This record gives sequence, structure tokens and C-alpha cells, in this order.
Amino acid sequence: MPFIEDLAAIWEKNDSLVCVGLDPDIEKIPAHLRDLESPLFEFNRAIIDGTADVVCAFKPQIAYYAAAGLERDLELTISYIHENYPGVPVILDAKRGDIGSTAEMYAREAFDRFGADAVTVNPYMGTDTLEPFLARSDKGVIVLCRTSNPGAVDFQDLRSDGKTLYETVARKAAHEWNGNGNVLLVVGATYPGELREIRSIVGDMPLLVPGIGAQGGDVQSAVTSGKTGAGTGMIVNSSRGIIYASGGKDFAEAARASAIKLRDEINKYR
Amino acid sequence: MPFIEDLAAIWEKNDSLVCVGLDPDIEKIPAHLRDLESPLFEFNRAIIDGTADVVCAFKPQIAYYAAAGLERDLELTISYIHENYPGVPVILDAKRGDIGSTAEMYAREAFDRFGADAVTVNPYMGTDTLEPFLARSDKGVIVLCRTSNPGAVDFQDLRSDGKTLYETVARKAAHEWNGNGNVLLVVGATYPGELREIRSIVGDMPLLVPGIGAQGGDVQSAVTSGKTGAGTGMIVNSSRGIIYASGGKDFAEAARASAIKLRDEINKYR
Repeated sequence: MPFIEDLAAIWEKNDSLVCVGLDPDIEKIPAHLRDLESPLFEFNRAIIDGTADVVCAFKPQIAYYAAAGLERDLELTISYIHENYPGVPVILDAKRGDIGSTAEMYAREAFDRFGADAVTVNPYMGTDTLEPFLARSDKGVIVLCRTSNPGAVDFQDLRSDGKTLYETVARKAAHEWNGNGNVLLVVGATYPGELREIRSIVGDMPLLVPGIGAQGGDVQSAVTSGKTGAGTGMIVNSSRGIIYASGGKDFAEAARASAIKLRDEINKYR
Repeated sequence: MPFIEDLAAIWEKNDSLVCVGLDPDIEKIPAHLRDLESPLFEFNRAIIDGTADVVCAFKPQIAYYAAAGLERDLELTISYIHENYPGVPVILDAKRGDIGSTAEMYAREAFDRFGADAVTVNPYMGTDTLEPFLARSDKGVIVLCRTSNPGAVDFQDLRSDGKTLYETVARKAAHEWNGNGNVLLVVGATYPGELREIRSIVGDMPLLVPGIGAQGGDVQSAVTSGKTGAGTGMIVNSSRGIIYASGGKDFAEAARASAIKLRDEINKYR
């Protein structure tokens, strides 16, 4: 099934908008896992088994695997989710972007090599650099729009003809790029006003919303600002708040408890 | 030596502003190499041996390795250059960018895991997302400014308070980000007017200039627009025009001839 349909189905099945960010830092995972052959995968497997029925997606951030030279752990992680929890989509957080011939290679990296169901991309280089991703109609293409970090204001908030850069990105996403119905946007939970504004531009387009938890975003304001009329439309990511809920051997149980708590808090405001 | 000093030394030693883009597509390299254990590395090794004395840098584009699951070939390539041609810097073209904690992982990927001397980065997410790279004062941080592709106009040319987005990036690069003297910008050869404008903003800051050759950029207009008063300041990249100069067993000799031709043409206008 196309990513967008998988997403709609899992929102309903698991009654959850929570996405778990699988960003395992080899220096932060529990000590008893570090000497295993596939330490990041073993960590992830426990987190996945603990949370797969209470989330709408998993989102591994590729930099954590690449920094450690452990692409193999990322491959194992994505295969494990697909084999054991069919219907739970995997978003590869990679924020790729380059000229067309290279973007085609990045699309192959995300979708063919790693088997991700969706990938995050950076729009700075323009529409032609997104096309190799957009052409993969069964995959989700999640474009950076208004990010959750403090420096997001530096360029994304610049106004041209009265419109901010992030607004221009949102309008292109809604009106130019979405011919295959596979576009989503990244909008940080830390800026609920912008989340509300972008929701009003893009209709029911799903939004990937990072920034809850360690980055300080408030659940109530994010959900009330970003949800659709149906009470969905959001993939609310938490990474550190879930995967490091405990640093001990009970990390998977603690991750489950943390994911359920976030799911329930989000559901109060849907 | 810091990247910037290596670059100044090699410009002089090899009398060349040419950078060879090591973007080996497994489907395009000569057939006799495809079944080797490290096909991309073997292709690169021949190109490197054929051109190392007539270039100022090598620039592998990571997507070509990642799409094929051949990060090992990229590691071998960078090690080979450092061991056999010390003083010839390696720029990892990766166009990374993410929030601070993840950007730190991307910096480790480029500089510690792969051992690159410089990396390309994307400024869309703002200053705080560049800081983990900028802090590595011995490494080059090459920020996307005005790219060479047709869609570059979509966002980079938007004007805010009379200044284009790329101009704002160039001004921040020159006045905010360059405390360690390790910042460079990407400016496409396909837009000589913009190259001239950016050169006037950034003083002698080196520019990585893609777009010559397959992308259609003209050497004379690019060099006269982008050079510094000393006749340097540019890393003029060619990938396909050099590495695929011949598709046969003479590909390395053809690459050498093509690199020398480009070097000499550039040097006419310095």
C-alpha cells in the first residue's frame, strides 16, 4: 500500500499519532548492549517490540548509524519492522537534497537500499531536486518546512512579497508538488502558531511534527494547532523522551510506558 | 594542516583550480570493473592516479556510494588519497543539515568516520544547525549558497528586504559563521552574474563551483566572475566530464586528458 494509506490505516488501528524516533547513540544505549555485534539494532529491536502497537510510525535518523559506520544496523532495523509489524511505516529521517542526478541516488538509498516507506528531504535547492523523490508515488516525501530548532527563524521566516519562506514551501507542497498525493511537511511542535498557519494552507496534508519532549514543545498547543478536522493529520515524533526513558535494562518497558503516556496525552486533544 | 591552508598550498603546487567529482555510478563505470570486490574504489583509484597532480581537490558525492551500499568503497577512496597524495584535500559532498544533536553526528560521519577534509552542508535549518560543523576548525565547511541547478531560483532567489536568500546566506557566511576561518560557499558556474555578486560580498572566501561541463556552465565567464584578485579562490568541480571522458579501458587516461584540458582552460582566464 502507498505510504499515505498505510499511515491512515495505522492512525486508526493503533489509535495513535506517536512516532518513535530511533536515534540510538552508541554512547548512550545501555552498557550491556554495546559489545553486541549489532548494538544499535539490538537496542532498536527491544524498543520496537515494546512500542509497535502504540505508535503510527518509526523514524530512524540515519546520521546516528552513519556516524558509527553501522548502516547494517539500520538495514536490520527497517527489515525487522516490516517483517514483524507489517503496516507500521518507517520514515527514514535523512533530510537529503541535491541536483536531479544525485537526488535520484538519494532516492535509491532511502527506498531501495534501506527499504524506507518515506524519507525527509530539504527544499533549499528547489523543485527539480525534489522530483526524483516525488516520482516514487508509493513512498512518502516529507519536505522540511518550518523546523523545530531555534535557528529555524534565520532563513525560514524571511518574508518575500509578504510571505515567509516556510509559507512559500507549504504552498508549493500543496499546489505544485503533490500530484502523486505523496507529500508531507515537517513542522516543529515548538512553534504552534506556525503549525496552525501551515495547517490552514495545506488542508489535510499530514505533518511530521518533531520537537515534543527534549526540544520543549507542548503537546496540547501542538495538537490543537496541527490536527485536521478528523483529529489526525499528524505524526508526532519523540526520540530521546522515549528511547532513553530509562538508561537501565528496563529501557524497553520504560519506552513503552513513555510512548503510551504521550499517545494518551495527544489523544486528549484530538 | 587546516583544510583552508591545504587548499592554498595545492592551488599553487599543482597550478590548478580543478576538482574532480568522484561520483561513480555502478551502472556507468567500465564493465570490466563491475564484478570486482570494491568496484567504485577500483574505478576511483585509477582516476585518482591519473589526475592527482593536476587537481586541487577530489570531491566524492556520498549518494553514489550509499545508493549501492558501498560506504566501504568511499572509506577506501578517501584513505587512498590521503596515503598516496598527501596535501590533496578531499571534500565529502553530502549536503547535510539537521538540528544540533543530529548535526554533530553528521559531522562525525564526514570527518571522523570517513576522514574527509571538508563537507558540504545545507543552511535551510539555520545557524545553530551549522555550528557542530563550524566548530571543527581544521575542517572546511562548504555551505550551499546559490546552486547550479535550474530550480535554484525557486527559493534561493526570493528577496526579503531587497536581498535574495542566497545573498543573506553569503553575508552570514562572511560576517557570522567564519570565526574559525573555515567557511566556503557553493556557487554554481551556471550563474556567472550571481557568482560575481557573491564574490563581491565574501572577499577572498573560497567558492566551490559546480556546473561546468555536463550542467552547461561556461569556463571563461565562471572564472572571470568568481576568481579572487590573486587568481584563485575557486574549486571548479567537474564530475561526469572527467570521470566518464571515456567509457572504455582507457578511462583513466581520458580523465587525465580531460582534467588537464579543463585546468588549462581555467588558467587562461585567471
